[in-house]
Amino acid sequence: MTFHYPNGKKYTPNITKANKNRSSFPAITHGKRGMTLEEDINESNKYYRATNQAIIHKKPTPIQVVSVDYPQRSSAKITEAYFKQPSTTDYNGIYRGKYIDFEAKETKNKTSIPLNNFHTHQVEHMQAVHEHGGISFLIVRFSTLQRTYLYDVTHFVPWFFQHQRKSIPLKAIESEGYLIPESYAPRLHYLQVVEDVYFHQ
Amino acid sequence: MTFHYPNGKKYTPNITKANKNRSSFPAITHGKRGMTLEEDINESNKYYRATNQAIIHKKPTPIQVVSVDYPQRSSAKITEAYFKQPSTTDYNGIYRGKYIDFEAKETKNKTSIPLNNFHTHQVEHMQAVHEHGGISFLIVRFSTLQRTYLYDVTHFVPWFFQHQRKSIPLKAIESEGYLIPESYAPRLHYLQVVEDVYFHQ
Repeated sequence: MTFHYPNGKKYTPNITKANKNRSSFPAITHGKRGMTLEEDINESNKYYRATNQAIIHKKPTPIQVVSVDYPQRSSAKITEAYFKQPSTTDYNGIYRGKYIDFEAKETKNKTSIPLNNFHTHQVEHMQAVHEHGGISFLIVRFSTLQRTYLYDVTHFVPWFFQHQRKSIPLKAIESEGYLIPESYAPRLHYLQVVEDVYFHQ
Repeated sequence: MTFHYPNGKKYTPNITKANKNRSSFPAITHGKRGMTLEEDINESNKYYRATNQAIIHKKPTPIQVVSVDYPQRSSAKITEAYFKQPSTTDYNGIYRGKYIDFEAKETKNKTSIPLNNFHTHQVEHMQAVHEHGGISFLIVRFSTLQRTYLYDVTHFVPWFFQHQRKSIPLKAIESEGYLIPESYAPRLHYLQVVEDVYFHQ
């Protein structure tokens, strides 16, 4: 299962106009490919599950429910609720028997990813997962550059807790992280990087 | 790490009236201890995290947000939303390097747990986790009997997909499952059973 990194060359999938217009392709909102990082990861996870490679899901957004109406016996309508700050990461699951746990962020910035995208609880959670023998990392997309990286928790944590910086420079992520290959399916083949980095080194 | 099952004797915490009325103590709704299964598991998970034994969280309830108001710049108020059916289980995380994934249900029934408490997607998810090398099980509480069991996915799945039954008899859970010891902290020591069943057999 060796893999050749594209050395900056990106595979451009041959999407026909018909495909582009399929209802499963939402409107273009971010970058040239038209998909947010979350959409790309969700589609990739679907592909991984369908091909039985991994069981990884996005966790639901935590919401504090305050009021619920019951207009019909069988249905409940929430009429007042608030978004809560997540205490863990957005994604977790299992790959080749190992616990996988990661957070995904994208930035339009071209030279760094601001650290105020992350919360202390999230970073502490990732560190704890690592200490318990799990695989934990960031997926960082520089959407303007159209590049997405996997960045291991052991590199990430010092930026958050020790360095006196407000952002992680792209240069650090380029040198310590791994470019994630993109294709038609899976859109973002981050498990290929996980395979290379955590299972073959 | 041996553990002595309480042989039916339950520890009753000394909850004063003041404590009972604290806002963090919800009204008594289930059993003599006054805690729902979910509360017991959440407290146990907090204890496991605080003592660095495991990193296990309840996933947020999936909610479909329809309308959001922004009364202030910084706050978002959800004014219309609906509960969605979960596609996975309620709890997952890592224990001793292994992926843990489980669903918890309680019933007032004294002789069986109805299978309509579970959804096909959940059971398929548990089966898939098992096939990928993770540890997956049910935690079933018979609240009237004040007994809580761990029941492995390999016993559970046939009841759901193969047997022509609408419930799993308590007798089956008694003989194939494991009684979970209860104490003050952790309230529900299910990881002790996990340790015995999955790491020492």
